Amino acid sequence: MENFNYYAPTRVVFGKGTELRTGELVRECGCRKVLVHYGSGSVKKSGLLDRICEALENAGVEYVSLGGVVPNPRLSLVYEGIALCKKESVDFILAVGGGSVIDSAKAIGYGVANEGDVWDFYARKRKAEGCLPLGVVLTIAAAGSEMSDSSVITNEEGWIKRGYSSNYVRPKFAVMNPELTMTLPAYQTESGCVDIMMHTMERYLNQADNMELTDGFSEHLIRTVMRNAKILLEHPRDYDARAEVMWAGSLSHNGLTGCGTDGGDWASHQLEHELGGMYDVAHGAGLAAVWGSWARYVMDARPERFARFAVRVMGVEETKDPLETAEKGIEAMEEFYRSIEMPTNLKELGIEPTEEEIRELARKCSFDGGRTIGCVKKLDQEDIYQIYMQAR
Amino acid sequence: MENFNYYAPTRVVFGKGTELRTGELVRECGCRKVLVHYGSGSVKKSGLLDRICEALENAGVEYVSLGGVVPNPRLSLVYEGIALCKKESVDFILAVGGGSVIDSAKAIGYGVANEGDVWDFYARKRKAEGCLPLGVVLTIAAAGSEMSDSSVITNEEGWIKRGYSSNYVRPKFAVMNPELTMTLPAYQTESGCVDIMMHTMERYLNQADNMELTDGFSEHLIRTVMRNAKILLEHPRDYDARAEVMWAGSLSHNGLTGCGTDGGDWASHQLEHELGGMYDVAHGAGLAAVWGSWARYVMDARPERFARFAVRVMGVEETKDPLETAEKGIEAMEEFYRSIEMPTNLKELGIEPTEEEIRELARKCSFDGGRTIGCVKKLDQEDIYQIYMQAR
Repeated sequence: MENFNYYAPTRVVFGKGTELRTGELVRECGCRKVLVHYGSGSVKKSGLLDRICEALENAGVEYVSLGGVVPNPRLSLVYEGIALCKKESVDFILAVGGGSVIDSAKAIGYGVANEGDVWDFYARKRKAEGCLPLGVVLTIAAAGSEMSDSSVITNEEGWIKRGYSSNYVRPKFAVMNPELTMTLPAYQTESGCVDIMMHTMERYLNQADNMELTDGFSEHLIRTVMRNAKILLEHPRDYDARAEVMWAGSLSHNGLTGCGTDGGDWASHQLEHELGGMYDVAHGAGLAAVWGSWARYVMDARPERFARFAVRVMGVEETKDPLETAEKGIEAMEEFYRSIEMPTNLKELGIEPTEEEIRELARKCSFDGGRTIGCVKKLDQEDIYQIYMQAR
Repeated sequence: MENFNYYAPTRVVFGKGTELRTGELVRECGCRKVLVHYGSGSVKKSGLLDRICEALENAGVEYVSLGGVVPNPRLSLVYEGIALCKKESVDFILAVGGGSVIDSAKAIGYGVANEGDVWDFYARKRKAEGCLPLGVVLTIAAAGSEMSDSSVITNEEGWIKRGYSSNYVRPKFAVMNPELTMTLPAYQTESGCVDIMMHTMERYLNQADNMELTDGFSEHLIRTVMRNAKILLEHPRDYDARAEVMWAGSLSHNGLTGCGTDGGDWASHQLEHELGGMYDVAHGAGLAAVWGSWARYVMDARPERFARFAVRVMGVEETKDPLETAEKGIEAMEEFYRSIEMPTNLKELGIEPTEEEIRELARKCSFDGGRTIGCVKKLDQEDIYQIYMQAR
């Protein structure tokens, strides 16, 4: 098993009515002025934003607001947020929303705390040396950004989606009331469930001799999300199912399911990032659309691991040939994806890229051939092209 | 399911050779002078203390040392540590050892950061308002104090063992090299395994409608510790088994297995605290000695929960009568305790209190009849007396 670091300092306040504690939580962070950052009008319409602002006022905390974050959050709004924070001397960012809003808040935080262009970090030109402190009121269970060290931003110049990770952006607190996710449309709910599962699957399907403790946690987490994703398709207002999925979302990406592993594969995420950047698809749905093709392309490099996944997570009966078991596990997962109305290829995702466009996706995903992605099998530009082609 | 808070900010640095990073970790905490706190001579003999001190020197960190912590750590040494820290203007405590050393360090930290007698907090006379920052180099997998909010101290005046919890004492970092635990005698290793299991069992056997996610994590954690406790009895130098147990120890008491529960029962811990205070027994062994009697005394208040434990953790076949299943689960756990050479009653623990002494234990455990313990069944002084009697 590998040495590892684990660091998940976010204070989680979980359950019904917890959003009313936001004011006191911000005040305890000792800040003077807050940027309240959010997405579309849904948090306005629902009255959540008003409740949050009232909680801030009751706690004697000053704030300014910036809405307009979209899925696959954009660099232009990040720049706007940075300028606003500097003008208003903001020293704390409160993200009210899902992964896109939190990631946008993280990028703004980097931009305020560091000189120069914030995109440099995402373009891997240099490293950040700090970030404004952040807090979260979570409204979508999916990205796990409320406890994670990562953020993903899309640069409209070239429609490039890139992630950057550092411990500076781990939120100080995360308020999680599962009731706030109940009105989410089914497609977004299920897309979120796939994202949550994939954060653990990326870590689980790897090249390491894993810890027994971590493997069992991971298997249980994925199975729990699958079971509750099905419940939510029929009963979107089931509090317990919403709560299971919401807490799984945080634990799936806060590092817990990576302990003792080699860090995981993450090729599926890289493959999806190009789709998200170019076609603006829902992240979880994009992951579901490429995962099967990726898994079949790499499984012969680690057949026992894929076979274990098939048996322990998908409930497939073990056969003598691990590759056969592995293939059955992949089929079972694709069947599950279909059962929760998620795509298993690009066409079902709603996009039909030409061969030329797929060459372009592969070129961008491999940084013009300058990098490989994944660890189960290291994938170069040609491998990436093949996987996209098989995913059509 | 219950609302919950989760806060486990400790930076974990886990694996081979990690103790060499102690200097840089302390320096990153921005402190000026460290108290290196430790127990018996074993960390001296092994050379660990020298390596740690060298790492501090290399990082340019000043330090003073205080050894002599014993199991069931004592208030008199805590007072000595407080005086030393004040005299030397210490602003960070580094605990090199197991739960006793860490708990002693936490108590010293309280004493330096708060006016008045530190025992007041443990006697529940008032609340602490801070603590010196702490770091840990862990040498015993058991108490989970390296990530927990709790510490337990024994006051020699009356031999009273009391715990006090607050987020102030969560360590800033925990260095965990499983190799450092390899030379631990079998009795201490297995006693530690029981302690780890019990931290999750106390949370699991409760009165709440638990989360599925938490229940599965808990069941897997307990089973993993059981499997590896058996391995370590035969192969004390098995790195992977040491690592599984060590990481389980932290996760079992950092709050993870309590999420969505009512906080847990903790009566077994209170019952053991009196034994530890009066007879100075090993904590985990003491827990094993009282657990069966406690479980039989309370199981009819929550038969389905005990039956689930029997089936999912102990692998007992389910019968129609949950109480029958529950009883079989308790028997299976006692059998497991015996298999790892742990006691299942007070006699096997090595103590034979008279009836009068048991009355005294019950009196102290119930704070002279002023409190009940436990939540599965609220136990008063007479209940406590009965459980101790049955545990003889």
